[in-house]
Amino acid sequence: MKKVKLKQERIHVFAPATVANVGCGFDIFGFALHKPGDELELQISDEPGVTIDKITGEVADLPKNIDQNTAGKALQAFYRALKPDFGISVTLHKKMPIGSGLGSSAASAVAAVFALNAMLESPVDKKTLLKYAIVGERITSGASVHLDNIAACLWGGMILVHSKDPIDIVELPVPEDLCCTIIHPQIEVRTKESRLILKKEISLGDAVTQWGNIAGFVAALFRGDYSLLGSTMQDVVAEPARSMLIPHFKDMRQLALENGALGFGISGSGPSVFALTVGPTAAESVGAAVSRFLEREDIGHDVYVSSINTEGPKIL
Amino acid sequence: MKKVKLKQERIHVFAPATVANVGCGFDIFGFALHKPGDELELQISDEPGVTIDKITGEVADLPKNIDQNTAGKALQAFYRALKPDFGISVTLHKKMPIGSGLGSSAASAVAAVFALNAMLESPVDKKTLLKYAIVGERITSGASVHLDNIAACLWGGMILVHSKDPIDIVELPVPEDLCCTIIHPQIEVRTKESRLILKKEISLGDAVTQWGNIAGFVAALFRGDYSLLGSTMQDVVAEPARSMLIPHFKDMRQLALENGALGFGISGSGPSVFALTVGPTAAESVGAAVSRFLEREDIGHDVYVSSINTEGPKIL
Repeated sequence: MKKVKLKQERIHVFAPATVANVGCGFDIFGFALHKPGDELELQISDEPGVTIDKITGEVADLPKNIDQNTAGKALQAFYRALKPDFGISVTLHKKMPIGSGLGSSAASAVAAVFALNAMLESPVDKKTLLKYAIVGERITSGASVHLDNIAACLWGGMILVHSKDPIDIVELPVPEDLCCTIIHPQIEVRTKESRLILKKEISLGDAVTQWGNIAGFVAALFRGDYSLLGSTMQDVVAEPARSMLIPHFKDMRQLALENGALGFGISGSGPSVFALTVGPTAAESVGAAVSRFLEREDIGHDVYVSSINTEGPKIL
Repeated sequence: MKKVKLKQERIHVFAPATVANVGCGFDIFGFALHKPGDELELQISDEPGVTIDKITGEVADLPKNIDQNTAGKALQAFYRALKPDFGISVTLHKKMPIGSGLGSSAASAVAAVFALNAMLESPVDKKTLLKYAIVGERITSGASVHLDNIAACLWGGMILVHSKDPIDIVELPVPEDLCCTIIHPQIEVRTKESRLILKKEISLGDAVTQWGNIAGFVAALFRGDYSLLGSTMQDVVAEPARSMLIPHFKDMRQLALENGALGFGISGSGPSVFALTVGPTAAESVGAAVSRFLEREDIGHDVYVSSINTEGPKIL
């Protein structure tokens, strides 16, 4: 059996938050942000196995038990495949909210497997890492795990999940000035519940509308056609149901569009919402307008403005 | 009222056959062929109104009554909007089979409105012409007219019907070597019946599979990625039902794929089937292999091999 060789014994990484679905592309589109995101440190030890030593940040009460922790579970899957003669201890700096619709569990899982991979003398490819990250993601989303957040986090940029079986991830181009505003209202929407609200069947007419938008969205990315991009960011499948779980969704959308958003939608299964804009100035305006509105309505919230993160996870 | 000025008093045009749906893109994708297609002649006359003088070709028993003739009805819609002080007589050379799934009615309708437009000193734009052609197309497909054949015929190349209301047609790039084999088995499948066989609702899972393929297909066209193009030409929505109306569909597909086809599917609502290939040699091989098979099965058929027609209709 081949010994696993290391380039380093300690690493500190960042993995980004992600927006899944992106308006029209339910379960197939996702993109990565520069902020927020999770940080994670790995330390090689002599004691075999994976242990989570410490969790810091906004949600420090996350379980340290490997089987209940997204980062731990993903890392363990990778560790078991490698069968190394060393152990790994983890410190997770949870720098983004969970249950926000921003791919929090995906960021933790990706940070963990990316970190270990970056320490190896012979790293594995992204597709293999994705499979380990999926093991972690299953803790929150169950058997019907979706790949849009994990793949966007791991690849960076804008990705298409062309197929789940076999797994085929297609990188899509990102127009240079594309920018994003995230508004995270501090209300709770669980991913599982948010999926249960969806109809199991959709009308053929709605499906045709949706795939016209999906095809147009991809063409708009390749052409850098912002007008087409905006007009294709329409979701007739998930948004009509899920937006009912998000207070003032329509008001926020109207404000976003009035302040320069190309399009507006739910990030993943919510409650976070997002707008795409041309450039950061418009993104800041959208954020400010929606923030003022939510303050008046007395709804606590966070606002993030970020260009599209084409790099994905990185070593700090 | 402004007088309608003419550049010429007589014209002879060609409008191409088209492949709608293109595997995964039910009701949204279409492309044009170099052959077969319809030819049409217009002659200005002093007698007001639109008349069909003569119909030649394979289906000479088509009605000459304007209200029952696709070309006549489309031309009349354009004529009524123009309100000219002259009349128009039409000779239609029907050079392609009807009910074949190759956009026969669209070719006739487009030929008619394209011909009149090409005679005008101040022609209208394609989107306006499309609206008149739709009036003709309605004769065969009823109220729920689909635009994929007409738009592909009028624009040429590969098109996306992004939206029917408002009408938004997006031109997609065509990789240079892309070639097509058409096999038209001489059996009858009516468009209306072929639509009735479709389920009115589809499962969310199938919809996600379909739009993953649709997005991948568009990306493949932009990248000239033939491998991705082939793997995205999968239809889980219309093909499973419609292929049952086409004898030996699975055998033909297998032969096509064994002989170099990237993908294989039903052209529009059938019974014609098509394969996409890289270059004409593979397209000829596919045509020959499927043709030999159909001969053994004693099924009359036509085979056409054509690159993608990026020009659309033209003056002869």
